[in-house]
Amino acid sequence: MGFVDSYGPWAVVLGASAGLGEAFATGVAARGVNVVVAARRGDLLGKVADSISDTHGVETRAVTLDLGDPGFLAGLRSTTEPLEVGLVIYNATGVYTGEFEDQPRDSMRSMVAINCLGPLMVCEHYGRSMVARGRGGVVLMSSGAGLAGCPYNASYAASKAFDLVLGESLWAEWRRHGVDVMSVIGPAMDTPTYRASMPPEVLAMTPPAMAPDRVVEEVLDGLGSSPSFVPGQTNREALAALGALPRVQPVEAMAAAHAGFAKRHH
Amino acid sequence: MGFVDSYGPWAVVLGASAGLGEAFATGVAARGVNVVVAARRGDLLGKVADSISDTHGVETRAVTLDLGDPGFLAGLRSTTEPLEVGLVIYNATGVYTGEFEDQPRDSMRSMVAINCLGPLMVCEHYGRSMVARGRGGVVLMSSGAGLAGCPYNASYAASKAFDLVLGESLWAEWRRHGVDVMSVIGPAMDTPTYRASMPPEVLAMTPPAMAPDRVVEEVLDGLGSSPSFVPGQTNREALAALGALPRVQPVEAMAAAHAGFAKRHH
Repeated sequence: MGFVDSYGPWAVVLGASAGLGEAFATGVAARGVNVVVAARRGDLLGKVADSISDTHGVETRAVTLDLGDPGFLAGLRSTTEPLEVGLVIYNATGVYTGEFEDQPRDSMRSMVAINCLGPLMVCEHYGRSMVARGRGGVVLMSSGAGLAGCPYNASYAASKAFDLVLGESLWAEWRRHGVDVMSVIGPAMDTPTYRASMPPEVLAMTPPAMAPDRVVEEVLDGLGSSPSFVPGQTNREALAALGALPRVQPVEAMAAAHAGFAKRHH
Repeated sequence: MGFVDSYGPWAVVLGASAGLGEAFATGVAARGVNVVVAARRGDLLGKVADSISDTHGVETRAVTLDLGDPGFLAGLRSTTEPLEVGLVIYNATGVYTGEFEDQPRDSMRSMVAINCLGPLMVCEHYGRSMVARGRGGVVLMSSGAGLAGCPYNASYAASKAFDLVLGESLWAEWRRHGVDVMSVIGPAMDTPTYRASMPPEVLAMTPPAMAPDRVVEEVLDGLGSSPSFVPGQTNREALAALGALPRVQPVEAMAAAHAGFAKRHH
């Protein structure tokens, strides 16, 4: 099956106003899938939507929303209700860097809302239809910080561990329904958020940042092939050397041990 | 330093009305530390508190609270404000087993509140004082399910990955302040929650459940020695065989890479 047959006719990309999310929306459109772009910054979002439809000849919709708002799904649903959504890419993320006890409580709440509760709600709503339809795809953005404790990024790292394991769990749960889920262990990427978040001395220590469109190509090519994925050969090698990869072996062991929980009537 | 000097004079145990939480409260009291026990079920909690003070001659307080309630911390603080809390054990947990798309949204919200936001709020509030004091301990309960994707436990596994990485991050961040944080990769334990959550055929496939008081002894003996810990030698061997252990190597690598984020004035 081609990309449109597997993941069309509509994709939803959350956090699509710039950087990797914009690259995801563009990459999906280049493969012939119509795109709903969603983010907080409506002005940027409208430009992204227009540019994508001009360049790739697909339909686009723009939804301004705040994933930290408990009611965000209602706003998104009102746009996507008449559309058949075959692909969801949850790229939006809360970020905090610094000493944990200095993080404001509102920042903690918003981190949990955007990085944990949001993915659950989005997976539940769109995944339910994909499971019923027997095809579809979901991409959740995790991070190398989610693989193991990461000081001065404690709440962020924890929330990215959440996304990593959520996607891996759903990969194992939904593959028999034809729905491909993948957690992306996001490498250093040359995006505005990344450049703003890294002190120069840390930036100097990290591997060269990947181009977002290269990340998007690897992810869209690999969707369905593994529960979690690290874009970039040098990043994969670095994480394997840390003892953080591979992850498919424990996921498969968990899946084997929990097969008894699947509903009998499927 | 003895246990009371490191982690006394008061401990707070969240989710202490039965099972492992009751065993933690009892184990801490047996080492001479006074205990605030907190949980939803006030009737059970009062009996646990009375039994502990009768048996071990320490002071106890019981606080009835629902960690799913956004305002839970205010209730807990009103009891602990006059006390010097040197140890917090976050044992309470939301649980869901079954197909992800069947999980009610309220269950997802409560899972995130109890397993993600609650630990952040508790670590922030009590950890701040411990960091200022230069001593203390925090135990967060994770699970083998948090190590990698676990189908039919997706939201639970994700939330336990959150707890695992939060504790590991704070271990790396707070060790220079003398505060010992440990994420416990909880093994199968012979508790009421465990027995109720496992279908008989899955129960039959899992390693023998550990006694809760044995888990407590290993955790309290090991506090501070590693960012995350698996109680039970056979459990450690099983997880190492899965490729899920050790975790200290990636945590130390993260810590080395992020040392530059620590505040200069410390």
